[in-house]
Amino acid sequence: MKTVDINVILFEGFTALDFIGPVEALQRIENYRIRYFSLHGGIVSNGKTLKIETLPFSEMQQGILLVPGGFGTRGLVQDAAFIEAIGKIADEAVFCLTVCTGSALLAMTGLLRGKKATSNKLAMNWVREIAPETNWQAHARWVVSGKYYTSSGVSAGMDMALGFIADQWGRETAENIARRMEYIWNADPDIDPFS
Amino acid sequence: MKTVDINVILFEGFTALDFIGPVEALQRIENYRIRYFSLHGGIVSNGKTLKIETLPFSEMQQGILLVPGGFGTRGLVQDAAFIEAIGKIADEAVFCLTVCTGSALLAMTGLLRGKKATSNKLAMNWVREIAPETNWQAHARWVVSGKYYTSSGVSAGMDMALGFIADQWGRETAENIARRMEYIWNADPDIDPFS
Repeated sequence: MKTVDINVILFEGFTALDFIGPVEALQRIENYRIRYFSLHGGIVSNGKTLKIETLPFSEMQQGILLVPGGFGTRGLVQDAAFIEAIGKIADEAVFCLTVCTGSALLAMTGLLRGKKATSNKLAMNWVREIAPETNWQAHARWVVSGKYYTSSGVSAGMDMALGFIADQWGRETAENIARRMEYIWNADPDIDPFS
Repeated sequence: MKTVDINVILFEGFTALDFIGPVEALQRIENYRIRYFSLHGGIVSNGKTLKIETLPFSEMQQGILLVPGGFGTRGLVQDAAFIEAIGKIADEAVFCLTVCTGSALLAMTGLLRGKKATSNKLAMNWVREIAPETNWQAHARWVVSGKYYTSSGVSAGMDMALGFIADQWGRETAENIARRMEYIWNADPDIDPFS
């Protein structure tokens, strides 16, 4: 089977669980290859003490994009060069998955215009303010709009990733992966205890 | 308030969610400082494409130890120098938290002799074989034996970390942190859907 790249986008001030949770599920699909990128490559930190090695965007191959959130997104939504770069790779991606305020970055590219999406429940006012043309859903564990999957805050990313796997590979595959992760999967995107 | 170090132990072939999940909860306690260590320091990988920067064990200060699992533990249980080093820092630690097969590393030090502990549900036969003097619990989301907290596989680490926070800082603090992580906390260590 053909290898499909899962391209994880990192930036200063990422939230690690936003992508490590989904990656834990996605990497169990044999032909997914996970790779970590930042705009210019090199070591990127969560703004605290976690430091991860990345490749530059220029080495990315078309695949499935995974965009986490984190406090770093607060500044990045104003960073025209970064938003333009994200817009280009998200537009070319086969699928684009965002977690938490990762959807704010995606929304700033314009690619979510008129589309349903969600974000961290504590950030709903903020995303509505900076990207009013996106149809933000306050009550949703995750939202699917064509090739765009957006999830609520942090832990919701794991539920969405398993939902994405179910859509692509069948419900049984997703349930088997959740079992091997010993993860209690909230498999219904409409069940959102935090809205 | 005094800063308390959370010392995360990394090694080649770690499972990232085993520690990133607990860290996501623990880092929300203001006076916890998270630091990442490996025996000799430097870049350590999950055996795939995730590469994290670490400090050497020699720079560790006494604190709370967090030991993940991963396929790397299969070889490390036979590595006398590593087990001796882990034994020393676990013995001196204020608390020692393990996730998944991280408990196999701890058990090999002898510190769990006669104590109740748990591990990944798919690894129970293996841990019983290599460390028969530990009182392994097949049905437990996590187990507390004095200063030693051991959890089941991967995702169970998040439930245990929140349980540890509840024990140290009160149930309400743990519930608030789970809410901000949008994490559906399985707060009862005896509820184990994977045993």
